[in-house]
Amino acid sequence: MSFNTFGHMFRVTTWGESHGPAIGCTVDGCPPGIALTEADLQPWLDARKPGTSKFTTQRQEADQVRILSGVFEGMTTGTPIQLMIENTDQRSKDYGDIAQAFRPGHADITYHQKYGLRDYRGGGRSSARETASRVAAGGVARAVLAALVPGLTIRGYMVQMGPKAIDRARFDAGQIGQNPFWCPDPVMAADWAAYLDELRLSHNSVGAVIEVVAEGVPAGLGAPLYGKLDGDLAAAMMSINAVKAVEIGDGMASASLTGVENADEIRMGPNGPEFLSNHAGGILGGISSGQPVVVRFAVKPTSSILTPRRTVNQKGEELDLITKGRHDPCVGIRAVPVGEAMLACVLADHLLRDRGQTGGQRGKIG
Amino acid sequence: MSFNTFGHMFRVTTWGESHGPAIGCTVDGCPPGIALTEADLQPWLDARKPGTSKFTTQRQEADQVRILSGVFEGMTTGTPIQLMIENTDQRSKDYGDIAQAFRPGHADITYHQKYGLRDYRGGGRSSARETASRVAAGGVARAVLAALVPGLTIRGYMVQMGPKAIDRARFDAGQIGQNPFWCPDPVMAADWAAYLDELRLSHNSVGAVIEVVAEGVPAGLGAPLYGKLDGDLAAAMMSINAVKAVEIGDGMASASLTGVENADEIRMGPNGPEFLSNHAGGILGGISSGQPVVVRFAVKPTSSILTPRRTVNQKGEELDLITKGRHDPCVGIRAVPVGEAMLACVLADHLLRDRGQTGGQRGKIG
Amino acid sequence: MSFNTFGHMFRVTTWGESHGPAIGCTVDGCPPGIALTEADLQPWLDARKPGTSKFTTQRQEADQVRILSGVFEGMTTGTPIQLMIENTDQRSKDYGDIAQAFRPGHADITYHQKYGLRDYRGGGRSSARETASRVAAGGVARAVLAALVPGLTIRGYMVQMGPKAIDRARFDAGQIGQNPFWCPDPVMAADWAAYLDELRLSHNSVGAVIEVVAEGVPAGLGAPLYGKLDGDLAAAMMSINAVKAVEIGDGMASASLTGVENADEIRMGPNGPEFLSNHAGGILGGISSGQPVVVRFAVKPTSSILTPRRTVNQKGEELDLITKGRHDPCVGIRAVPVGEAMLACVLADHLLRDRGQTGGQRGKIG
Amino acid sequence: MSFNTFGHMFRVTTWGESHGPAIGCTVDGCPPGIALTEADLQPWLDARKPGTSKFTTQRQEADQVRILSGVFEGMTTGTPIQLMIENTDQRSKDYGDIAQAFRPGHADITYHQKYGLRDYRGGGRSSARETASRVAAGGVARAVLAALVPGLTIRGYMVQMGPKAIDRARFDAGQIGQNPFWCPDPVMAADWAAYLDELRLSHNSVGAVIEVVAEGVPAGLGAPLYGKLDGDLAAAMMSINAVKAVEIGDGMASASLTGVENADEIRMGPNGPEFLSNHAGGILGGISSGQPVVVRFAVKPTSSILTPRRTVNQKGEELDLITKGRHDPCVGIRAVPVGEAMLACVLADHLLRDRGQTGGQRGKIG
Repeated sequence: MSFNTFGHMFRVTTWGESHGPAIGCTVDGCPPGIALTEADLQPWLDARKPGTSKFTTQRQEADQVRILSGVFEGMTTGTPIQLMIENTDQRSKDYGDIAQAFRPGHADITYHQKYGLRDYRGGGRSSARETASRVAAGGVARAVLAALVPGLTIRGYMVQMGPKAIDRARFDAGQIGQNPFWCPDPVMAADWAAYLDELRLSHNSVGAVIEVVAEGVPAGLGAPLYGKLDGDLAAAMMSINAVKAVEIGDGMASASLTGVENADEIRMGPNGPEFLSNHAGGILGGISSGQPVVVRFAVKPTSSILTPRRTVNQKGEELDLITKGRHDPCVGIRAVPVGEAMLACVLADHLLRDRGQTGGQRGKIG
Repeated sequence: MSFNTFGHMFRVTTWGESHGPAIGCTVDGCPPGIALTEADLQPWLDARKPGTSKFTTQRQEADQVRILSGVFEGMTTGTPIQLMIENTDQRSKDYGDIAQAFRPGHADITYHQKYGLRDYRGGGRSSARETASRVAAGGVARAVLAALVPGLTIRGYMVQMGPKAIDRARFDAGQIGQNPFWCPDPVMAADWAAYLDELRLSHNSVGAVIEVVAEGVPAGLGAPLYGKLDGDLAAAMMSINAVKAVEIGDGMASASLTGVENADEIRMGPNGPEFLSNHAGGILGGISSGQPVVVRFAVKPTSSILTPRRTVNQKGEELDLITKGRHDPCVGIRAVPVGEAMLACVLADHLLRDRGQTGGQRGKIG
Repeated sequence: MSFNTFGHMFRVTTWGESHGPAIGCTVDGCPPGIALTEADLQPWLDARKPGTSKFTTQRQEADQVRILSGVFEGMTTGTPIQLMIENTDQRSKDYGDIAQAFRPGHADITYHQKYGLRDYRGGGRSSARETASRVAAGGVARAVLAALVPGLTIRGYMVQMGPKAIDRARFDAGQIGQNPFWCPDPVMAADWAAYLDELRLSHNSVGAVIEVVAEGVPAGLGAPLYGKLDGDLAAAMMSINAVKAVEIGDGMASASLTGVENADEIRMGPNGPEFLSNHAGGILGGISSGQPVVVRFAVKPTSSILTPRRTVNQKGEELDLITKGRHDPCVGIRAVPVGEAMLACVLADHLLRDRGQTGGQRGKIG
Repeated sequence: MSFNTFGHMFRVTTWGESHGPAIGCTVDGCPPGIALTEADLQPWLDARKPGTSKFTTQRQEADQVRILSGVFEGMTTGTPIQLMIENTDQRSKDYGDIAQAFRPGHADITYHQKYGLRDYRGGGRSSARETASRVAAGGVARAVLAALVPGLTIRGYMVQMGPKAIDRARFDAGQIGQNPFWCPDPVMAADWAAYLDELRLSHNSVGAVIEVVAEGVPAGLGAPLYGKLDGDLAAAMMSINAVKAVEIGDGMASASLTGVENADEIRMGPNGPEFLSNHAGGILGGISSGQPVVVRFAVKPTSSILTPRRTVNQKGEELDLITKGRHDPCVGIRAVPVGEAMLACVLADHLLRDRGQTGGQRGKIG
């Protein structure tokens, strides 16, 4: 909705700072009678968890999620579900250097400008640590989708690191979980490993492009004009730390197409209309068409680097700043499970909204 | 907010179909005491108006906006402002062919799937005609911004048509209003004219990229994490007809940068901190930094073309469809004033929201 | 939602002032496929219309409602429905006296304090004229309820005028439409007629209590804790002009009951559980129980009276004010159709919200 | 907004069940730079705490509130404030009898009807235990009000228990904290003690009326028409457990007044206009007038009593039910601090909303 809540019928409110005692979220509006335990949520958190390879921050967090409300005897009750994750490995002393100074490219300065004060430890509220709450909420959304739309699947992966994009001809979904980059192209995964190692050792970082795809999404989700499915996906992905662009289907490349090329032509298949291509990324007029929903987003490079950069501090003094601490050389890697979670939440929200307005009935074709 | 409302403190609810008696919007939450007349709004509508060159639809609409409420003796009263624009040039008979059939690449099919019925005349609610209401609301937002943030400017222009991008070295703001494309590069404007003429005559259409920039935006606008300024901009732009991607600052290109490159370094200037570059597009952590806010969006090619495309109808019959009627060969052109309007509305909304939460006070630097 | 919108799934945004060119509202979120014409709405507006007896204002308004969007070939399309009512009998000259002075007991002074300026003609936005928009929206809500919950009925009537309450033993629903007061007690109706005539001629006005009842409401509507059915009803009724109190079921009298008395005991009937009494007014824990939903509200006396009252004007001068113009001696009379409309809108909203979250499925008993 | 959130700019989302591990709330939108510690909140929780006299439930809860986020070095940061209260004295075995059966007058049956399942332990989500979260949020609201509106005070007290109302002539604010009933009339306090003791020992319970008053509220708070201050207060109070009616100012008694009596006449005082009476309860047209804001609400008797009442269970079997466990004989007593908290939250919300829309500037008089 606003500030720290997203969604209308499936609503998630997150709270917590990087170095406070805990972080978490309230999931409100979840339908009753959905089977849910902490064990259903933990695997998604483990996938996002830091410290699992040399390519992510070495902060060690168990990221154990606890369900504090809204579930009774293993079933959701329709009341708000509180999910809490304790912070266990805060090393606040790392942050003395940035207590007063602003990292270039970071939210340090704008939080100071807006609020006049900030919890500088680990970036406080602006830390990517908050995304653990999103992943937990996404786990609840997946449970809802599994119950209400059997067969719907969500899959995220990295398609570009720095200037190096995957070769779509080598796309192998089975590879995604086999490397530290969620990379579907095994050749590129090896390339990235060498590339990122070099960047990391030279005190640098790099950006990335993530793609998340939902298959089996029913037609009819999305509420035009200001609750369009793609509008809500754009807001959801842009709200992830460091994201600077969001694409649906062909995205920016749509601009280069002609109308003849862009038309996803339609024929009748055994179960109804079938599209012969998916330039639209599964969304037309803000409403899902039944095709795979395809979303991509660009993640900028981590701004916390060991290379000195010119900046100022609160007193207005100019200085060169090195950011110590434990940072991700490519924060895009850990954005993959976060993008999946956001897609799951938005779909769950729209499923309930559509069920409310239309009853989930569909216009017949054929 | 949802469905047909956007904004939280400056809230716009639009209504109306392409071929109904009128379209319009309610602007709620506008501060009182802002000078406003119909004459303040009309120029923005005239800029978006169809039929002004051979490169836009030949539908003739006066697009006269009327203020029906919320203004008394030339000043806003703080109560809802109703803006109405009568439809005067509907030619519904053009739409007989698509009453039952679905244009490939168009929302025809998804509206049918979701709602089971649709006003097919001119695309009904999914028509770009609705954007006239946005432009009217944007005029109100501009009046608010002018009163509360003197010096803030908003400017939109087209930077790419099909594969043809402008040369930034030739960027001349004075050229924008001098050609039918809102093109800041006069060489490219001529190139586009020839290119689009050829496409139009060959019964085709093409996509485009629009850039909108706000200068003089105060630091501190944006409410992390789910009311981020860039999150709301992404949703706002993605809600415009035919938009498939939104970028802030370097956008997708951020993915190719290293952290050393991407850091917008900071020095002290005479009036406070100054950034040495603007990869961030004026937004860090979802909050404006005081730099120009830079947003780009891609518009797909018009799906209503005279070239036959394969599709089906409601009965499930396969057919080849030609879309007659009066359509824009590059709908991106008329999206320029719409993008400006959405930017104005989002900024006005965030200005009021920030004033509410923080009182608009800013953290001192230096 | 806020400011000038109410409802979440069935959302109504009203606009317009007493003496502007028109008033109206946007109904957003209405399900598609509901039969709806202007003829379905007009009777409800006629019931609220001024000038139908000597006991209401003599302003003559046709109150013709027009549907400007959201309906195609007699059916709702799921897109926003714009309803407009032109103002035809404004006599703004009546309001010269209150352009600068504040009527005691009226919103004149608080609108001035809040906004710094106001449309003083006929009370501007604070006029009860706005309730015509609510009645129009209520007509749409009734159409939704008729389609989705056959058998649900809504009925409002006046139960008290000044100190004179009806005798429940004489309650006769057939009488409600037979007198100018919507009074179910024919003896009291005659009493009120004499009483109000005397008040009117002595330049005075009087308050009233209205009761609105919905029968056939399904169990399960209401979203605890801050979207409770009774919480939303309380807000809806309190938002009506001049309302100062809202009761559900036994209301204030609940305070005098013991737990033994207040328990609505339950037995099994042929179609499920049956309550033996209805102290609760059909709502338990914020959720409808299947019993009749009973709401009462108190309307204060009209503050625009011909008896001089002490007040001040904008310059801070003290004066005695007489309010000329055409005013209702008992504004409660015309609040009856408004209360019905608000009840219809809240029920339609909760019906859609519940369908969204729970699918409208009910826990079995027996 | 909806479901489990209230407020727009100062937003509170509560979570938790009576017998889960903890309850709590997220306060979102709090301005930055407000001094806040757990010690500021605890006294309000202690005032609501059960087990402090024989007239409230004997459940022993420390009700220790923890701040988990949103506060840094003793100051609010503008980010969401998470408040958690652990449940320590759950005796779930008391609830075996109502696991399947529905207490008459209680939400047991409607939660079952709506959700199909429920956490029956202690009433689960419908328990008054949730109000501890409201009281904690109210403590934050009080801190905001203290910082932004010095001199604003909030005071609640009980004015009626069963049929026994206080004598306003004996009103002594100093007495309120001196008896277990928050009673400002010492004679009535003694009477209530004897009366409630007798009811309690006879296995019965009783209703009550609470009054909460805010003094020093600035004029101008409230956003007509659907964000009226009284509309939001009505919803807020009606959302408290067991509340069946809400009154503003003279409330239901307004219906018995004439316009001549009801007009709160105005004269000029040394600091601006002064009202000579306060029938309106400080709110005109939904906007505060600067007079004391006066709200009353009726609380029905506790439905959990030891006297057998006729009911049914999930299987549809008829039975006579006695509710064991530890229950308040007059739940109205503990509603006093809750009513104060809700009033504080609504005022804080409207203060920020008004600051957003109007800048908090006021129209001049004199």
